[in-house]
Amino acid sequence: MIRIIAVGKVKEKGILDLINEYLKRMQGKVEIIEVRDLGKEKEGEKIMSLCEGKKIIAMDETGKEYTSEEFSDKIDGDMVFVIGGPEGLSDNVKKNEKIALSRMTFTHEMARLFLVEQIYRTFQIKKGTKYHK
Amino acid sequence: MIRIIAVGKVKEKGILDLINEYLKRMQGKVEIIEVRDLGKEKEGEKIMSLCEGKKIIAMDETGKEYTSEEFSDKIDGDMVFVIGGPEGLSDNVKKNEKIALSRMTFTHEMARLFLVEQIYRTFQIKKGTKYHK
Repeated sequence: MIRIIAVGKVKEKGILDLINEYLKRMQGKVEIIEVRDLGKEKEGEKIMSLCEGKKIIAMDETGKEYTSEEFSDKIDGDMVFVIGGPEGLSDNVKKNEKIALSRMTFTHEMARLFLVEQIYRTFQIKKGTKYHK
Repeated sequence: MIRIIAVGKVKEKGILDLINEYLKRMQGKVEIIEVRDLGKEKEGEKIMSLCEGKKIIAMDETGKEYTSEEFSDKIDGDMVFVIGGPEGLSDNVKKNEKIALSRMTFTHEMARLFLVEQIYRTFQIKKGTKYHK
C-alpha cells in the first residue's frame, strides 16, 4: 500500500473530485491520510507516527527532481509520501529523502493532485499502457 | 494582455472551473485561446498566426526550469504562452524560448491549470500579497 500523508483538507471541489477519481482508478493501492493543521512541529510528530517504519519520501521544493520515468523507478508498493501544510514540513520529516515536483511553488492542493497523478502515471508506465505515451 | 494558446479543450470540469476562477481573479489581464487538435504541424501554423509578433514562450518538457520568483521576472504584460496537445509542439513553435513547469510529465489539462496558477502567482508576487508567502 502506498500511503500519502497530507496536512489539511482539499477545499477546491474540482481538485478533490479529480484526486478521488485517480484513487478510484488505483483500486485501493493508494490511500491518503489527512493530518490536521496543528503547526509544523506537532504535524511532524503526528506524521512520523503514521509512517510505521516504512520508506518515507518528503515532497519538498528543495528536493531532487525526477522525470516521470525516474520517479516510477523509485516507487514500490509499501511506502509513504508526505505533503506539508502552508508552513512546510518539520525537520524530522525533512531529514528523509526529498523529492520536488517542480522548482516552482504551487498550492498544497495542487501538489496533492500532482503527486496522485504521478503515482497513477507510475502504474501506467509499469503496465505499459498508452497513458504515458 | 497575456495570451495563452492551448491545443484542445479541457474536459475535466474541476480543472476547467479552477482555471476559470483564476482567469476571473486576473480581471481580463489573461486570455486563453484554444486551437483545435489538427495534428502538430497544422496546429503550429495556426498557433504562430495567433502570436502577432509578440514574445512567445513555449511550454515544453525540454525547456528551462525556473522558480516562481524567476518566472515572475520573465512576465510582462504583452506576451504569448503556448501549450501543445498530445503530440507536443511543432518545430516552428519550439524554436522560441522554452520553459518547463516540471521535469515530470503530466496531463495537458493539468499543465494549463499549473500555468494559469503560476501567472496568477506572478501577479501576487509583484503586488506583494500573502498568496506567495
